Amino acid sequence: MRSPISSSPSHPFSPSSQIITLLTDFGSADYFVASMKGVILSINAQARIVDITHEIPPQDIPAAAFTLLATYKAFPRQTIHVAVVDPGVGSRRRPILLSASDQFFVGPDNGIFSYILDRESHARVFEITNESYFRKPISPTFHGRDLFAPVAAALSSGLAPESFGREIQDCVRLAPLKPEKLAGGKIRARIIHIDRFGNCVTNLTPAELGSEVIGNGAALEIGRRRIKTIRRFFSEETGSGAEVFAIWGSAGFLEIAAMNQSAAKILKARPGQTVFLLGDNV
Amino acid sequence: MRSPISSSPSHPFSPSSQIITLLTDFGSADYFVASMKGVILSINAQARIVDITHEIPPQDIPAAAFTLLATYKAFPRQTIHVAVVDPGVGSRRRPILLSASDQFFVGPDNGIFSYILDRESHARVFEITNESYFRKPISPTFHGRDLFAPVAAALSSGLAPESFGREIQDCVRLAPLKPEKLAGGKIRARIIHIDRFGNCVTNLTPAELGSEVIGNGAALEIGRRRIKTIRRFFSEETGSGAEVFAIWGSAGFLEIAAMNQSAAKILKARPGQTVFLLGDNV
Amino acid sequence: MRSPISSSPSHPFSPSSQIITLLTDFGSADYFVASMKGVILSINAQARIVDITHEIPPQDIPAAAFTLLATYKAFPRQTIHVAVVDPGVGSRRRPILLSASDQFFVGPDNGIFSYILDRESHARVFEITNESYFRKPISPTFHGRDLFAPVAAALSSGLAPESFGREIQDCVRLAPLKPEKLAGGKIRARIIHIDRFGNCVTNLTPAELGSEVIGNGAALEIGRRRIKTIRRFFSEETGSGAEVFAIWGSAGFLEIAAMNQSAAKILKARPGQTVFLLGDNV
Repeated sequence: MRSPISSSPSHPFSPSSQIITLLTDFGSADYFVASMKGVILSINAQARIVDITHEIPPQDIPAAAFTLLATYKAFPRQTIHVAVVDPGVGSRRRPILLSASDQFFVGPDNGIFSYILDRESHARVFEITNESYFRKPISPTFHGRDLFAPVAAALSSGLAPESFGREIQDCVRLAPLKPEKLAGGKIRARIIHIDRFGNCVTNLTPAELGSEVIGNGAALEIGRRRIKTIRRFFSEETGSGAEVFAIWGSAGFLEIAAMNQSAAKILKARPGQTVFLLGDNV
Repeated sequence: MRSPISSSPSHPFSPSSQIITLLTDFGSADYFVASMKGVILSINAQARIVDITHEIPPQDIPAAAFTLLATYKAFPRQTIHVAVVDPGVGSRRRPILLSASDQFFVGPDNGIFSYILDRESHARVFEITNESYFRKPISPTFHGRDLFAPVAAALSSGLAPESFGREIQDCVRLAPLKPEKLAGGKIRARIIHIDRFGNCVTNLTPAELGSEVIGNGAALEIGRRRIKTIRRFFSEETGSGAEVFAIWGSAGFLEIAAMNQSAAKILKARPGQTVFLLGDNV
Repeated sequence: MRSPISSSPSHPFSPSSQIITLLTDFGSADYFVASMKGVILSINAQARIVDITHEIPPQDIPAAAFTLLATYKAFPRQTIHVAVVDPGVGSRRRPILLSASDQFFVGPDNGIFSYILDRESHARVFEITNESYFRKPISPTFHGRDLFAPVAAALSSGLAPESFGREIQDCVRLAPLKPEKLAGGKIRARIIHIDRFGNCVTNLTPAELGSEVIGNGAALEIGRRRIKTIRRFFSEETGSGAEVFAIWGSAGFLEIAAMNQSAAKILKARPGQTVFLLGDNV
């Protein structure tokens, strides 16, 4: 098989040790992830591949969007993130490429980069249409290997985002990451992720809580339950004996947790569920 | 511990950034896989190690053979694939080394490379007997660390396959990968793999289906069931409403699948089961 | 975010391709492990990161200590092992750094390096107090990313252990690795680990068994059961028909195993349980 890329003299590839991360719902039992890595290394032998995770629940785009949001800032400039949770593979959904925060993001246009776009106001989005960078023949069920991996590898060799297609403004978005200010100082937030320990990650950040710290009169309301305790770390002794408490998570969001238990189970919480932040006078 | 390898002046090792893949049934919870990586990096610090998977069902040689077949072509020339699913470890089964398709394959002689041999007619097979490349003392239960990993690392440093032992012709084989042509245009195929979604991968390739495309009169027969629908991708709307359908999988084989369900469960299918391809006049 | 490290001219970092291993109980579904890798590569882009495992049972320090013990010798000189099983994160438990066996070990002071200290009599231990190497702001719940990863990355760039804090002598230890000699030649050992197949790893090594080989009159006693059969490898035919047998494991310890079954289940064994080695005259 002659590579469609090495045969293209107008696009000389220079190997670089750029980092390419992979985030998928492929699991680690099958040949899928390794095939993507092989394709990347066939194009850029010096690429440094890092797995974010392959255990995103099948087709759970919001979980993928959250996980990417929680980790991209830890990576250096020029990192290329490939995210493939792609229920629409083979259909008309567009493949896209983002340039944001001095990094790149490659994947399907289905909302998976929504939270990056919410955070990074200078982001640019490109539709990937230049088939000369695809693996041939392209499988209609495996764009991870045949489209996203070779595009990322080509990008890691120094190509500009414009090489892959035209800039677009209308990509698919999830509900906004930012909580909504209501009348009377009340704030409507939501659970954006429930992790495997049952911790419920809200979209509340220090920007919303300001001086109005929980426990100092303010509270979270989820369903019929009010949460008034905030802890600094899990093993902290607060004396409050609260079963369920709020804690600043390491992704920068307020989380609802329980000691050695699943807060999600106790609260019967689900992703997307509304959480109100109440001021001390509500 | 003085390395038996660095003390061998007649085999000067030059570090190279060759890719070494690992495919095992060791799981990822124990120290097994990391030990293999440590041994490889102790011998060739520049080796680039890529996991194919460590979640092969325990001792399932055909699953390992299929997974390797499905991914090796994605890797560049000179890649060294180490495959260790090895129920006979410590007994008299032979360790072998293949040179095929400009790549190398290292593992036990139990059929694990059978499908590579079916595909690559110019393959050469060597029995690994040169103990000077083994880690000492060799554990009778962990040849992955003490035999296959150091041999792969030595190979990655530029040694010829002949350095490890003599060429052999009689290695262990699974049932042939190629379907069997019967009288009257009927073809006897089989399920070579069932993936974790319950998709049943057959050994039928475009070579067998030619112009005789399923849906155009031809059909698959498994047990008492006939399958006449073929889809291009999973989310395709065919209007046929068929519960179970055929689809070209990304490994290049015809698969039997069901939308959001396990085809294997619906069909009570099992690995190795016969599937007939019927022409339009059968 | 300006790195606190690159802004420190008195500590010039030189990228090096040193190996950094990671051992945690974080699982592979979340953003935790990838965040640690991103932080490491942001500081030392040339570091070679190897996962030991992230599937240590949550908060199981002895399992982490065993896994590290079983694999560190496979890695080359100068390898840096980062081990984070850390129920006390955010509290007053100390972060420490070991220099032992020409390698480094970074993690919490909770016994996780206990078996390395038992094995390596020349080990030196340092308390990590120099906050200039930490990521800021440091999350009280994620020292893996904000403290241990950046310290390991700084160490991989050639810093001396003394740069991170003062040497200490009083670090936390698990029960000693060495079995206890009792009167009459009896030896009191214990189960230090039960692997996922149910094999029970004891702390007995060839040093304790000497010429007094099991089967040659000697036996193991666990609960009310005596084990008199020792095998060389799993598929060995011994003719003894023993359901449960002893076997030298690849980590260098005597293990209690059962053919295609969980010895732990048969014996109702638990980690830490006492096992006696009886001479032929007991």
